[in-house]
Amino acid sequence: MTAPAPPRSRDRPVTETVAVIGAGAMGTCCAKLIAENGHRVRLWARDPDQADAIRRDRENRRLLPGVTIPDGLVVTADPAEASTGADRLLIAVPTKYLRECLTELAPHLPAGVPALSVVKGIEFGSFRRPSEIIRETLGERPITALGGPCHAEEAAKRLPASVVAASDTPGDAEAVQWLMNSDRFRVYTNDDLVGVELAGALKNVIAVAAGICDGLGLGDNSKSALITRGAAEIARFGAAFGADPQTFAGLAGIGDLITSCVSQHGRNRAVGERLGRGEPASAVTEDQPKVAEGVNTVRSVLPLAKERGVRMPVCREVHAVLFEGKPAADTVDALMTRPPGGE
Amino acid sequence: MTAPAPPRSRDRPVTETVAVIGAGAMGTCCAKLIAENGHRVRLWARDPDQADAIRRDRENRRLLPGVTIPDGLVVTADPAEASTGADRLLIAVPTKYLRECLTELAPHLPAGVPALSVVKGIEFGSFRRPSEIIRETLGERPITALGGPCHAEEAAKRLPASVVAASDTPGDAEAVQWLMNSDRFRVYTNDDLVGVELAGALKNVIAVAAGICDGLGLGDNSKSALITRGAAEIARFGAAFGADPQTFAGLAGIGDLITSCVSQHGRNRAVGERLGRGEPASAVTEDQPKVAEGVNTVRSVLPLAKERGVRMPVCREVHAVLFEGKPAADTVDALMTRPPGGE
Repeated sequence: MTAPAPPRSRDRPVTETVAVIGAGAMGTCCAKLIAENGHRVRLWARDPDQADAIRRDRENRRLLPGVTIPDGLVVTADPAEASTGADRLLIAVPTKYLRECLTELAPHLPAGVPALSVVKGIEFGSFRRPSEIIRETLGERPITALGGPCHAEEAAKRLPASVVAASDTPGDAEAVQWLMNSDRFRVYTNDDLVGVELAGALKNVIAVAAGICDGLGLGDNSKSALITRGAAEIARFGAAFGADPQTFAGLAGIGDLITSCVSQHGRNRAVGERLGRGEPASAVTEDQPKVAEGVNTVRSVLPLAKERGVRMPVCREVHAVLFEGKPAADTVDALMTRPPGGE
Repeated sequence: MTAPAPPRSRDRPVTETVAVIGAGAMGTCCAKLIAENGHRVRLWARDPDQADAIRRDRENRRLLPGVTIPDGLVVTADPAEASTGADRLLIAVPTKYLRECLTELAPHLPAGVPALSVVKGIEFGSFRRPSEIIRETLGERPITALGGPCHAEEAAKRLPASVVAASDTPGDAEAVQWLMNSDRFRVYTNDDLVGVELAGALKNVIAVAAGICDGLGLGDNSKSALITRGAAEIARFGAAFGADPQTFAGLAGIGDLITSCVSQHGRNRAVGERLGRGEPASAVTEDQPKVAEGVNTVRSVLPLAKERGVRMPVCREVHAVLFEGKPAADTVDALMTRPPGGE
């Protein structure tokens, strides 16, 4: 999966015009990183008041406080203003709103230009990946997905991050590498779009399990083993759906999984922790202002895994706790007393 | 790497007599786990006073406090008493003392019986793996190594742990699985002895790097990426020395690596954190009552990596900070500004 190295950022000969669709933390962070690399960036916010506020404050105070928006970065709520003449669309809309938002914007966005997706998740019910939703709503075009451990709050403040750009269109991941790579944002490439997108969605289920582990007070041995075996089972699932299992050992797989399972800020881990402490599942899921992605993802994953004959013991236990009334403490026995076998 | 599942622990038809060589935290923990599975266990402590104390207290108060030693578990400082008639030796002596200790014990230990090594590390200077040292000192015999995330303090208290037993002797890893597997200690098998042993040693270098990351305050994105890329480079090194790269994506690889890089108790991570905070390397290494394993391991690894043409950018930076006077903060630039490429 080695790609030819593009020129270093300081020697980059091409300047792109990029329309960033979505002014959440991640959209704003990417807009800033790309603008700082010398490209022309236009950031589209759905809400005109939010666009005005960001433009006025040169800061996205609500979603990415403390980060200055570079001069010259255009902020607008007008999709045509954001995207006319753009060389690339960067899609940064949460999975839940992605189809609706892009369907609405489609008439205003340029056809055929490459799309870069930083969306992590899977569509509930349809099990569509973000790139599939983008192509279904905006039409066929080169697509690259960005995966890997990347809290926007850290990357926007120039704390080092390493990510992977994956594309099914030859050369497009390398173009994204060229666009975004910097001395604090290291972009690797691979050609496994399916794997990177599935990894970004499935990690949320394992993060719920990691939270359960924390809530039960099971210690470091358990949690590291859970992350490792969780990575193995989502790799098996990925392989059954055409992904390269190696992707799950990389930044988009185990890398993102570690952050989601270890960071105290992760929403999915936090949901799991409350379950592990004995709160009933109904209270935990109803209580969330936004339901954690892993909760819906596991509902889609299990029937598909069953259909393809993929063993997913960790996901199965998360489902049992969330939707079948199983006490979290009982998952330990279920996972530890299966017949032992090869790794 | 799938092995036929041996019978479940409660149906286990064979009772072994096991001599545990070394009464540190890990040796004591393993002795307890094996005794609780119904086997006859004799625990050898080098120091007669320590053996007396453990026998009297039914607790290893110095090295594994709070854990009761099961009735019937023999504790002795006499190697012949420990090992006469034993079906298996379990070797639990730190790498640093392993050759000297086994050379001294060799005349008293039974020839040819299988050895189970729970030693993690690599011999400084010779770069010999524990299983090689065991065979060189005790003679040819079946050997299995136990790898994976396993703090003795947690496993001894029945907090769940999952580990991997790896052997180059067909059937021996499965025998160890049979010996140790329980409802709170899950033993997987594989046949990559070299990989499991190299993973157990090399993780310590990456843990130093993770500590540097903590000391510099680089955040979750950096640390997860470092662990992931660290796993990739130790897998490359392992492959050059005959290991299966897949082992490094398993419990002995990424599993143990996560614990070593994340746990606040790890000695290697702690050394790195002090370096990251700007303490001079000399102060950090001299100050340690026991030098952290990763410090010596990196000195052996780098020349070998160079010899085989293996890229190890993380290990190289750890070496530079420890032995070449490089300020820890400068490693960030060194790692982040390399030409970008494929994952």
